[in-house]
Amino acid sequence: MELNGVTIDDTYAEAFPTWVARPVITAVTEEWAYKAAVEAVGFATSTIGCPAEAGIDCFVSPDETPDGRPGYAILICASKKKLKEQVVERLAECILTAPTTAVFDGLADVVAEVQEKLPVKLHFFGDGYEEKREVGGRTVWAIPIMEGEYIGEEEFGAIKGVAGGNFFIMGENQMAALVAAQAAVDAIGGVPGVITPFPGGIVASGSKIGSKKYKFMGASTNE
Amino acid sequence: MELNGVTIDDTYAEAFPTWVARPVITAVTEEWAYKAAVEAVGFATSTIGCPAEAGIDCFVSPDETPDGRPGYAILICASKKKLKEQVVERLAECILTAPTTAVFDGLADVVAEVQEKLPVKLHFFGDGYEEKREVGGRTVWAIPIMEGEYIGEEEFGAIKGVAGGNFFIMGENQMAALVAAQAAVDAIGGVPGVITPFPGGIVASGSKIGSKKYKFMGASTNE
Amino acid sequence: MELNGVTIDDTYAEAFPTWVARPVITAVTEEWAYKAAVEAVGFATSTIGCPAEAGIDCFVSPDETPDGRPGYAILICASKKKLKEQVVERLAECILTAPTTAVFDGLADVVAEVQEKLPVKLHFFGDGYEEKREVGGRTVWAIPIMEGEYIGEEEFGAIKGVAGGNFFIMGENQMAALVAAQAAVDAIGGVPGVITPFPGGIVASGSKIGSKKYKFMGASTNE
Amino acid sequence: MELNGVTIDDTYAEAFPTWVARPVITAVTEEWAYKAAVEAVGFATSTIGCPAEAGIDCFVSPDETPDGRPGYAILICASKKKLKEQVVERLAECILTAPTTAVFDGLADVVAEVQEKLPVKLHFFGDGYEEKREVGGRTVWAIPIMEGEYIGEEEFGAIKGVAGGNFFIMGENQMAALVAAQAAVDAIGGVPGVITPFPGGIVASGSKIGSKKYKFMGASTNE
Repeated sequence: MELNGVTIDDTYAEAFPTWVARPVITAVTEEWAYKAAVEAVGFATSTIGCPAEAGIDCFVSPDETPDGRPGYAILICASKKKLKEQVVERLAECILTAPTTAVFDGLADVVAEVQEKLPVKLHFFGDGYEEKREVGGRTVWAIPIMEGEYIGEEEFGAIKGVAGGNFFIMGENQMAALVAAQAAVDAIGGVPGVITPFPGGIVASGSKIGSKKYKFMGASTNE
Repeated sequence: MELNGVTIDDTYAEAFPTWVARPVITAVTEEWAYKAAVEAVGFATSTIGCPAEAGIDCFVSPDETPDGRPGYAILICASKKKLKEQVVERLAECILTAPTTAVFDGLADVVAEVQEKLPVKLHFFGDGYEEKREVGGRTVWAIPIMEGEYIGEEEFGAIKGVAGGNFFIMGENQMAALVAAQAAVDAIGGVPGVITPFPGGIVASGSKIGSKKYKFMGASTNE
Repeated sequence: MELNGVTIDDTYAEAFPTWVARPVITAVTEEWAYKAAVEAVGFATSTIGCPAEAGIDCFVSPDETPDGRPGYAILICASKKKLKEQVVERLAECILTAPTTAVFDGLADVVAEVQEKLPVKLHFFGDGYEEKREVGGRTVWAIPIMEGEYIGEEEFGAIKGVAGGNFFIMGENQMAALVAAQAAVDAIGGVPGVITPFPGGIVASGSKIGSKKYKFMGASTNE
Repeated sequence: MELNGVTIDDTYAEAFPTWVARPVITAVTEEWAYKAAVEAVGFATSTIGCPAEAGIDCFVSPDETPDGRPGYAILICASKKKLKEQVVERLAECILTAPTTAVFDGLADVVAEVQEKLPVKLHFFGDGYEEKREVGGRTVWAIPIMEGEYIGEEEFGAIKGVAGGNFFIMGENQMAALVAAQAAVDAIGGVPGVITPFPGGIVASGSKIGSKKYKFMGASTNE
């Protein structure tokens, strides 16, 4: 295939099954929602060495969030076994701790059917001072915290997803390929339900399975 | 004490011993060094639920980095037992994978004496194609990757540090306290060797040890 | 009216007639389109002392731009007499000079009828090396520049608009009002065809017409 | 000359005399100081079509500003005749209007001798409610505004400066040259007293004096 003078070789792409949750984080301003979201999706490029793969799916406008505040939808991806723990820890440590945040399950908003429901019981942090409440039609827990109140749903949908779908960029030189990759990440940025979890969305060091020389390595530099 | 009309009650601050490494990440532009650094210090607010506590220490100008490129010094903090693994994984997954990056040990630049040396052997990823080289007086490994070459030192100093040193901000209302906290984070930003690892540098949900109601909780909302 | 516990007093808002153009700026990456757009809408808060009032309307995705690249739509507002000159100078100095940019008229995309057409003849800069071309159904000039090629339409629609529509925020204290204003700017950010040209979208120093004490002042602090 | 394998041809660089002022803008947070500074230095790439050339010189830490708040030093450059008006308008429209800002003269902080003093009398905006005050050893006017109080010095030093000093980057292709230019802008960013006023610091469309084909053009594309 050729597109805008670029030859595209549509062969195959390495990909793995994964499980995906989609929390929506809101805050008093878009900026605070963003700061919390960035922290929550950090250290999450590849499950080879990170506890999850995660990224920001998209901005969610005040019109579309349960509490009428600006928000960001994030995707957290992990094996079925590890996903619950990752959603719990990333919300507990990176969102509950951030000023003015609230968290809602954003998966049902975008898929027809949720395959699993993950219990995410942060309300115990309230030590009995917490209470159930309704916000925008969602049942949430309001947890009193030093800074005010944390609002959170405690059941998050999960579905099977695909981790992978990469493509290689061949360029005249390193910098041409780098800017091409940035342009690709920009284009992917507009596709709902897709994240590019590596730094700046780009993987510089694609790998092959195993290693010819170092038998203890599960993956090594691509050839 | 009173400062600019603000009463400051200098009582005590909760703090814990920790171990600290200080990698310096460089890249072709400041922006790429920053993107990689942000990913590497993510999901690292509190070791209660995160595998480490980490943040950006400061920008390091091209004049001060071994390879003459712009960089960011990050601090990664964890228990002595876990620090090596965290440095390895955060560099391997978030920096080695980022375009044009190199990593150097930045601890000896800022402390008189390093207490431990952590081996961080990423060069096995090179599968035998890697080679030793000297860059700016540092012995590094050059690992061929799809995007070009990753340059990295493989021994990182570590020292004992302090995790804690918080202070409470009391304000007329939530938003006044929030902006005051932002101003505090700005001021702390200029102090070398100090990070504020929570989102935007602020902890909204300070905790007390244990829980009165839920005995299985190690920490719960402060009272 | 009361909204979320906030009393809203719907009285009147100062406003002025203005003329509006809506160029769409594209570039190789979203980031470069953004940098150029920010420069082009700078020094444009109020026509009391700035040559125009301008701001970013919205991001325009690659799917929606004539050249399939990411872009930003900006609004440039001025009196009918001054608008053409402001569009010419802001495009010539801030966009033609920026790397990889192209400019298209984005007004017809969003309004049913354009009331005026402004000729914006930047192609003379090409000194005879320029050529007419078609890009995404638009007739443009391709101007060879040191960095490559600048692509630009040379006729920009203009319509009557409204400059004004402010509202006052009363808060318990300065910082509460400031964050409330930020939240308002976030909400306005999602409204198509509306810009908030002051720094951060907020006016700190509303004025009254004239001055009681200094007769030579056209405007002075509101009372 | 050769540097890091790059041939550098040190011939000559087009440059013009200019006059320079250096206001320092502070605000409650670094972010607000930055937002105001960005607006104040916008539409200021080249005096061919902009009313001034302006840019951010550097961040000024709370330790170094008269009011102990974070700030940004900006440079505003124009002909001797136009500089005063540009400083007045950019401060009046972009800084006085921004929330929580104050402005101080930052030129004497960095040069041994100031050659001119520009009167910048914004206090008339106070309509008689303004008052003289001392802040950090500076005589300022405190002007009551809707959002609180604007603090500003009213005499700004000016010195002769140089507008120019460009260099050409030749690359294997457009994107390699673009990233090289970004790296150059990063390096220049650390040089005190130097700004790169074009978008992202880069000029894509260098010009020659006049035009061979269009006699009415003062400048046209470089050949």
